[in-house]
Parts: sequence; C-alpha cells; structure tokens
Amino acid sequence: MREKTSLQSWQSTSFTQVSMEDHFWQPRLEVLKQVTLPACLHKCEETGRITNFAKAAGLQEGKHEGIYFNDSDVYKVLEGAAYSLMNHPDPVLEAEIDRIIDFIAAAQDEDGYLSTYYTLEAPESKWSDMEKHEMYCGGHLIEAAVAYYEATGKRKLLDTACKLADHYDSLFGVGKRHWVEGHQEIELALMKLYKVTAEPRYWKLALWLLEERGHGYGIGMIWDKEEWGPPYCQDDVPVKDIQKVTGHAVRAMYLYSAMADAVHVSSDPDYVEALHRVWNHTVDRNMYITGGIGPSQHNEGFTHDYDLPNETAYCETCAAIAMAFWNHRMNLLFGDAKYADLVEREMYNGALAGISLSGDKFFYVNPLASKGDHHRVPWYDTSCCPTSLVRFLPSIGQYMYATSGNGIVVNQFINSEGTLVMAEGLKVNLKQTTVYPWHGRIELSVNPDREANFTIRVRIPDWCRSYKLLIGGESVLDANRLIDRGYIVLERSWSPGDLIVLEMDMPAQAMRARSEVEANRGRIAIQRGPLVYCVEQADNPGLTYDTFTISDREPLQISHQPELLGGVTVLKGQATNGLPIVMIPYYAWDNREEGFMQIWIKEVRNQRLYS
Amino acid sequence: MREKTSLQSWQSTSFTQVSMEDHFWQPRLEVLKQVTLPACLHKCEETGRITNFAKAAGLQEGKHEGIYFNDSDVYKVLEGAAYSLMNHPDPVLEAEIDRIIDFIAAAQDEDGYLSTYYTLEAPESKWSDMEKHEMYCGGHLIEAAVAYYEATGKRKLLDTACKLADHYDSLFGVGKRHWVEGHQEIELALMKLYKVTAEPRYWKLALWLLEERGHGYGIGMIWDKEEWGPPYCQDDVPVKDIQKVTGHAVRAMYLYSAMADAVHVSSDPDYVEALHRVWNHTVDRNMYITGGIGPSQHNEGFTHDYDLPNETAYCETCAAIAMAFWNHRMNLLFGDAKYADLVEREMYNGALAGISLSGDKFFYVNPLASKGDHHRVPWYDTSCCPTSLVRFLPSIGQYMYATSGNGIVVNQFINSEGTLVMAEGLKVNLKQTTVYPWHGRIELSVNPDREANFTIRVRIPDWCRSYKLLIGGESVLDANRLIDRGYIVLERSWSPGDLIVLEMDMPAQAMRARSEVEANRGRIAIQRGPLVYCVEQADNPGLTYDTFTISDREPLQISHQPELLGGVTVLKGQATNGLPIVMIPYYAWDNREEGFMQIWIKEVRNQRLYS
Repeated sequence: MREKTSLQSWQSTSFTQVSMEDHFWQPRLEVLKQVTLPACLHKCEETGRITNFAKAAGLQEGKHEGIYFNDSDVYKVLEGAAYSLMNHPDPVLEAEIDRIIDFIAAAQDEDGYLSTYYTLEAPESKWSDMEKHEMYCGGHLIEAAVAYYEATGKRKLLDTACKLADHYDSLFGVGKRHWVEGHQEIELALMKLYKVTAEPRYWKLALWLLEERGHGYGIGMIWDKEEWGPPYCQDDVPVKDIQKVTGHAVRAMYLYSAMADAVHVSSDPDYVEALHRVWNHTVDRNMYITGGIGPSQHNEGFTHDYDLPNETAYCETCAAIAMAFWNHRMNLLFGDAKYADLVEREMYNGALAGISLSGDKFFYVNPLASKGDHHRVPWYDTSCCPTSLVRFLPSIGQYMYATSGNGIVVNQFINSEGTLVMAEGLKVNLKQTTVYPWHGRIELSVNPDREANFTIRVRIPDWCRSYKLLIGGESVLDANRLIDRGYIVLERSWSPGDLIVLEMDMPAQAMRARSEVEANRGRIAIQRGPLVYCVEQADNPGLTYDTFTISDREPLQISHQPELLGGVTVLKGQATNGLPIVMIPYYAWDNREEGFMQIWIKEVRNQRLYS
Repeated sequence: MREKTSLQSWQSTSFTQVSMEDHFWQPRLEVLKQVTLPACLHKCEETGRITNFAKAAGLQEGKHEGIYFNDSDVYKVLEGAAYSLMNHPDPVLEAEIDRIIDFIAAAQDEDGYLSTYYTLEAPESKWSDMEKHEMYCGGHLIEAAVAYYEATGKRKLLDTACKLADHYDSLFGVGKRHWVEGHQEIELALMKLYKVTAEPRYWKLALWLLEERGHGYGIGMIWDKEEWGPPYCQDDVPVKDIQKVTGHAVRAMYLYSAMADAVHVSSDPDYVEALHRVWNHTVDRNMYITGGIGPSQHNEGFTHDYDLPNETAYCETCAAIAMAFWNHRMNLLFGDAKYADLVEREMYNGALAGISLSGDKFFYVNPLASKGDHHRVPWYDTSCCPTSLVRFLPSIGQYMYATSGNGIVVNQFINSEGTLVMAEGLKVNLKQTTVYPWHGRIELSVNPDREANFTIRVRIPDWCRSYKLLIGGESVLDANRLIDRGYIVLERSWSPGDLIVLEMDMPAQAMRARSEVEANRGRIAIQRGPLVYCVEQADNPGLTYDTFTISDREPLQISHQPELLGGVTVLKGQATNGLPIVMIPYYAWDNREEGFMQIWIKEVRNQRLYS
C-alpha cells in the first residue's frame, strides 16, 4: 500500500482582502489601470475582437476578423478589468465591461455554444479540430466570468459561462464524445467554476478532460503535423504518467495547473507524483534564471534538457505567467516555500519583463541577451501576452498570503495592509512595511481582533542566505529549529500590535548555471534579492556586446536611483579590464534607447584558494 | 630594459595616533594588559628566562635555564609591554620593565655580544651553529628596544640594541664573515633600528644578511640534517630567485617581511618580483581559510601545494602573526588592499584563535578540525606563540590607517579616534564608528584642522560583494569608477565633520576550496564578514564529528549573543538531516567544555540549475 500523500490544501487569499500601498507594485498597477487596460480594450475594439461578438450575435454585419482564438483576448482583458475593479472601483470601466458582456452573452448559441470564429466562419465544422481553441476560449470566458462575478456580484457573464460549461458537459464526458483540447485552459477554468458554483459536474468534466489525454485519439492540425504531434500539446502520455516537461510551454503549465487543481479535489497520489516529477524536471533542467521557460520558437516550448540559449531564448511572457499560476497552486497544495520562490521569480523577472514601464508596449519573446534588435511593441496579431499581463499583474495580491487551517502563510513581501479571516471567525489584520525588493527588511504587524493562538509561516526566499528575526524587538533565539519547508513557523499566542521583523541580508550574488547548460559555461549572472540583473547598453556606453568580462569577486556598489526607470537600485562595478559596468534589473530593460542587453556575462575566474 | 617598479611606500601609522574604543578589540586588549602580559612576565620569571640575564651579568649564580632561544621570549614580552604602555601608561608596569632592562643591559658583553645561553653555557662556541638563534634573539631585542624607546623615550635598551647591532656589523658584512641566521628576524629588526636611528649601516647589514642566503655555505644542526636542510630555513636559493614558499613557516614569513622592508630602501625589482611570486604561491596554494599557514608539524612549515589537511593542520600561531607582519609591509609597499585583506584575516581568525578569551591560555598549533582532544595551555617550553600574541595584539592599531603622500588609507575597521599628520602639517582627525566585525556599516568622520584637498582610500574587503557608499548623506553616484586596487579612492576637498558611510552587506557566505585541496573536496565553510565560522560541540549536542552535512542553500539566522563567549554573533541553521546546527566564530572555539570542532563541513549539493 502506498503512503498517504501529505497535502496541505492551503487557501489562497483574494486580493480584496489585501490592499497594496507598495512603492514597487502600486505604480505598476496604476499604469496598468490607466494605460494598459484601456489600451488593450482599445486594441480589442480596433482589431474587431469585440465586434466579432456583435457579429456573431447578429447585431452587426460582417465576417469574423482575426485569428480563431481571438475571443480569448477579450475574455482575458475582462478578467484583468475585474481584478482592477476589485482593487479600485471604477463605474466608467464597469459600464464598458457590461457593454462588452452584453455582446458576449448575445453571441452565445441557444444550446450554450460560443465561439465567434466558428459561428461566423464555419458553423458546420465545430469540434472537428482539437487545436482550434474552442474550449480554450471557453475557459477564458469562464475565468473572466468568475472574476467579474467576484468583483461585482453581477451574474450575467457567470450565467453565460455556466451555460457554456453545461453545453460542454452535455457533449463530452464519460460515455460521451472523446475530446482533448489542444490548448489547455478549460480544465483549470472548470475547476474555478466549480469553486464558485459548487456544481460537481464541472470538476468532474475537468478531471475527465485531463484523463482523456495521452490515449492516442487526438485529431486536428497539431496531431497531423509530424514536427509537432501529440507531445506538443501534452497528449502523448496519460497525465498521471508524465515524466518530463514537453511541448508548448504555456499549454504544459496550464495542464500542470489543472492537475494541481484536480488534486485539491481528488488527492490522487498518481497525480501528486507526476506533478513532483515534472516540476523537478522543469525547474532543475529547463528553466531560465529569469523564470523563463520554453527556449524554442519553433514549438513555443521545450526542447531537450539544459537547452537554454540566451540570445534565441523564446521564453514567452505567457509561459512565465503560467509558471506562476502553476507554482502558486503547488504552494497551496504542498505547503512548500520553494513554489512561492518561483512565483516570486516570475513576478519580478520573467513575467514583469513582458511589459514596458509605460504600460503600453509588450514582449511576447523574452531573450536573456540581445544585440540590440529586440524591442517591445504595442500589440500583436496573437496578443495573448499583453492580455495575460492584464490579468496577471492586478491579481498578484492573491499571492501574498495564504491561510491554512491553523494559521497564516506569508508568501510574498509587499507593503500592504489586509485582513484575513481564520477558523472560528478570528480576523487577523496584517500590515507589511517594506521597500522590498530593494531592501530585505520586512516588518509584519500582526493584529488579531482578539489574542489568539495561531501559526504564522514566513517564507525565507531561496535567494536568502542569512537573516535576522525579531519578534517584539527581541531576537528569536532558535529560528533554525522553526524552519519547515522553507518557512519559519511561528506558533504562539498573538496579540494586537505584535511585530515580526525579518531582516534578510540582500547582497549582490554571483550566480552560476549547472555545467550542463552549455550557453552559460564560463559565465555568471548577478542577482540581488529576487531580481536578476542585466547589463544594458544605455548605462554602459563603453562596453560592446559580450566582449567584456567580470569577476565574481568584484564588489558591486548598490545605488538606488529614484529617477531612473521608475526607481531602480542599480549595481555598479568594474569589468575585468577596469571599465565601469552598470547593471539594472532585467525587468526594466528596453525602456530607453535601443542597445545590447546581457544577463550572463563572461567570467574571469580568479585562481584563488577559497571562493 | 625592465619597467620601473611602481612602489607606493605608504607610511604605517603608529598606534599612539589612534585610540581604540572598540567593543571587539578593547576588551581583548584589556585582558591582554590585565592577564596575558602579567602572566607571561610571571612565566618568564618562573622559568628562569629573566634570571638567565642576571646570571649572565654575573649578578646571580647558576646555569642557563631552558632552551637556547629563551632570551627572545623576554624581549617579545618587553615589546608587547611597550605597545601596551603606548595605549595605556602604567608606571608599575614600566618600572618592572625597567628592572628587566637593567638585567639585559648588564648581561651584554663589553664588545656588545648578547646571548645568555652562549655566555653561560658555551662562550667558546659563539657563531658556530647558524641555527642557534643568536641573531634571532638579538633581533627581538632590537624590536623591543625600538618599541620601548618609542613608548617611553628611554634609551637604555635602545643603546644596548645599537651596541649589539654594531657588534654584528663588526663581525659580519661585505668582506667579513659569512653568516646566514637560521631563524630570520634580525633582518627586519635591523631595518626597524635603521628607521629609528637613521644609521645606514643597519639597513646595509640587513640587506647583506638577506643576500648571503642561498649560496650553500650554511653550517649547523639544520643544514646537517638531511630531512631539513637549507630549504627549511630558506637558504636553498638566493632570495631574489625565490619561486616558492618553503620550509619553516615563521622563518619564511620573517624573511619575506625583511625583503619587503629592504625594497622600501632599495626598490630592487628582483626583490619585487620575488615577493610577488612567493606571495601568490603562498596565498593561492598554501594558506588555510583561517589565514593559517604551514600544514606540517615535522618542519613547522610547508610541504607541497594544496596540502591543507584540517585535523593535522599545524598552523602555528606565530606563523599567522608573521603572515600579518609580511602582508602589512606588502600593503605599504604596493598599495594594494589584498594585503590588508590578509592582515584582517589573521587578526580575526588565524592569529586571534591562538589565545583564549580569558587571556591566559594559548594554542601553538591551530587545526581547523578537532575530535575534541586539542586545547589551549598556559605556557610552552618553546613559548614563542604566547609571546608573539603579547606583541601582536596591542599593536593592531598600526594596521588601521596608513598615510600616503597625498592622503589617508583606511585599512582596518575599528571603532576608534585618531589624528594623522599629513604633508604640510595638515592634521586630520578620523573617527570610526562601527560594530565591525558584527555589522558591515562603517561611519568615518573626517576632521581636518582646515579645509583641504586630499585623498582617502577606503578598503573594500575581499569578502565584500556589495556595498553602499554615502558622503554627507548623499549616495556616491559612481563609486565603481573610483576603485583602485581594492580601495575606493575619494579625492576631494574635505571639511571638518565630513562623514563617509560605507555600508557593506555582510551575509553568511558559503566558501569552497579549490578542487586541488583534497581535504576540502565536497565541503563548504561558512564565513561572515572577515570571520570564519566553525561548528563546536558545546553548541551542538545533537551532532557528532563529521557525520553531518549542510547545504549552501541553507539560510542561516544571524543572532548576536552578548553573553556568549564575550559577545559573538552566532549563525544558526539546519543540517541536511533537519537537526539544528549552530556556528560560532573560529577564534572563539575551545573556550568551553571540550568537544569536537569543524570548519569545513560536508556538503550536500543540490542539483539546481542556478546557484
């Protein structure tokens, strides 16, 4: 008999529970609300993505515009708008969303089916090609509907979503028609819909969709193309037998996210083992230091282990965001800080690099080195990445805390205030005071509404090598005895006003890749706290691409520059030829004049006895 | 034609120029004055070392007691007493020293010769065995005399020293008798005597003694023993041809110290090159992480490259101190912070470990690992190490600053106040405020007696990977452009009250040895700031010697414990089996109940992509 799987099933907190007054995130969310969201709505309008719904509803004449998965962009912007409304109510925005929702609802067929592409272009060909993103779009509709319902209490889009899910359920499932959705998304969306509606058919359909994979019955343009085939969309093996990360990176991450969701319901140990296997395989062999995944443009995904070229790194922004989705779920499921470490890595690096500081330009592809010819643009024909950012960034508040049966989990460090509701109605107000990620000091003021015994888990990030910990001004004597799966576990009676101070040393650190990574042999990257740094030409007129070297012994000056790039801490040192070298956080690159950029820098290794 | 050697010829500052109010060093100097110095004087008395002088003077009957080099211990204690008097006048101590000096002066022969062993035991055998430490003892007399003269202005011992040096000069030198002193010391002593007397015969004799080496004419018990031979006392090659560090560690360091002194006078490029060669060979291949040198008990010295066993490490305390002497001279000569880094390494590790916190017990041998059977004792028959500590510790003030023609060099970080006299009579008062080595923040208040342009060089220690630098509360924008040979070079007009704040990140750092060091393969050591840490049984009842492993990813809690071991910052983490692990600074080990100690700990390396 197998050992029972130990699952934590922590609960995510909603971002309405947390109000962020963070000097790092707040300006970004403001830009997102003021610039990015309107810009994306405008682009959806301008490119016909919204009018496609009006056309499908018969309210307007015309053919379907754009690509067959364009509906999803509208849904994703709606989801992002919902999160933004949770943070900042805005009647004008809400009215605009309601207007779009009316089109969407009107575009739905009587039986619940909804795809403007098929309705307008090929109504007779529905469900004929598993790659055509019918359920993928449906999944995003569902996520948007759940978010908008949670933000406003309005049911119209949620009803549309339920009707769509019921339609799927009527066609597919045990004893019905076989289906493997080419691009995963519907599975985790159905799990969300289950959580908000408590309708068990939804999680059962999600599970069925997962279980359908890997049996060799896929049909459609992916399956037919030899260079892609089933591994591209993770239809090559049953999900419980997954050994390795394969194929399209976003699809893979959505699949694993859905599998993690499924375990919350099923506790299936086969899934648990598969998740651990594929997580290790992804993180230990197939992830860039930025958190980027999927090196290859060809399949927008994975190739072979340790294939992590820098200049040609694909690293789709959506994949970095999806990696955060998956790892957030893993953290809740298994209660290990190593997953929250990766959420952080994406938040500050892989995902954040995808958007300009101005909020109106985006990277689809995120290389780790550039000779100067890679730049953000305002929109893409396939604009999944901008619309992923629109829904990811305003939702980061949910990654900050989790609750377990007996306590609170502090996962991310953001200057904020929020109130969590615990078991037995205990309310705990938490106030984080910090200038993270620029400094490693976190003050956490704990204010339960009555003195109470509970546990607070505080994540010690993977980058942290040493720290001080004080409670009520007193050094905690044996914090080392309290560490469990990357958290300091503080279990005691808490009174209003209790203050936890975690002071983490945040030096610049020279990072090395495993020697198997050919691209980074003889190179180092600099990381400080959660931020990966890069050398960009704008700060380094004296340097040319990849002709300079540094030493890991070079002391770096830490200098915060409030006027630069929205306020960044830069690192300044000397290349080994004595020329000055200036590094900025990777997320902030390509916001000035064009020029080269590098994360991994050639290293001159000193032959010292100790290092 | 060879390039002209670039020499800095910085000036050391005397410790009377600096008053230390340091929470780390002041208690140690107090113990040294109150406990160590009286204890060593008492031991010199008790073991006949002082009465040997009375006997040699004919003031008392009896044979010579102890070993032939015992005079040197008395001189070294006198030198230490002189430094202590510079720091803290003490008429009682001064009277006691004067009493001993009377015996010493009385013991000197008419012609200037002075060795109680030869005078009492074998007057006919003078100068028959180069190993018999005649000039070694004379050298220590000279160093003591210079120190006591500088401390008190009294000339009696200095006159004795000059008479002795004149005697040597009458017997040895160009066209006179060949001599290679088995244990170097006279050479650097004569250079000191030259500095205080301005008598050029002294530096010429020192240089001649250096040049006499390596020509194959050595005689005496070292040269006759096949297992030792000329390399043992660095008489195997002419000093300018030295390629590698060899033989007895203390002798080698004294030799290189004298060579560095000689370059101050001669600027000989052959010496310069030899010094660079042998420094690299010593530091890159033959030095422990503690700064300890000389792994072998057999020759109290060096063996072959990378032979650095931990448990059987010899690492004589005197050798660590001598390494500081040499590197201090190298720093002044070449103006590179890397030498001051090593002075620091010895101050806080290799040398400091040689004395108990109580000040009355000593290590001669300083292993880096012990199963629990190695302990400090109050005295040794060969008691060079206690008496070296007595003269080393009260003199550390001189390592803090140096002056160059155009400025000030800040080499060591000690809470202190002092006034340096610069060119053109400019006086600069410097106040350092710091709790180094427990925290990396240094405040340096610069108070010239008038506004003036000069340069302040501030060492960025080798352990420092990142730092902030502020002058007058403003971040220095481009400190990276100001770094030269390990110093930040601040050249500007300074006004009274100008404040430099250097804030160095001081995380716990996992250190690795070069793979050539067999003893440390698969092991890491933990260093924080300048302090090497160790695991001692007293703090770790749950662990047994070398059965546990740690990971370099283990976050360590930094916890200052004012009540422990005179006040230490301990590091607390978990061994890889989850057991708590507590580390203390290496210098503080063996001050409690006996038990195992380890610096290098077996490492479990995670197979992560980035580290």
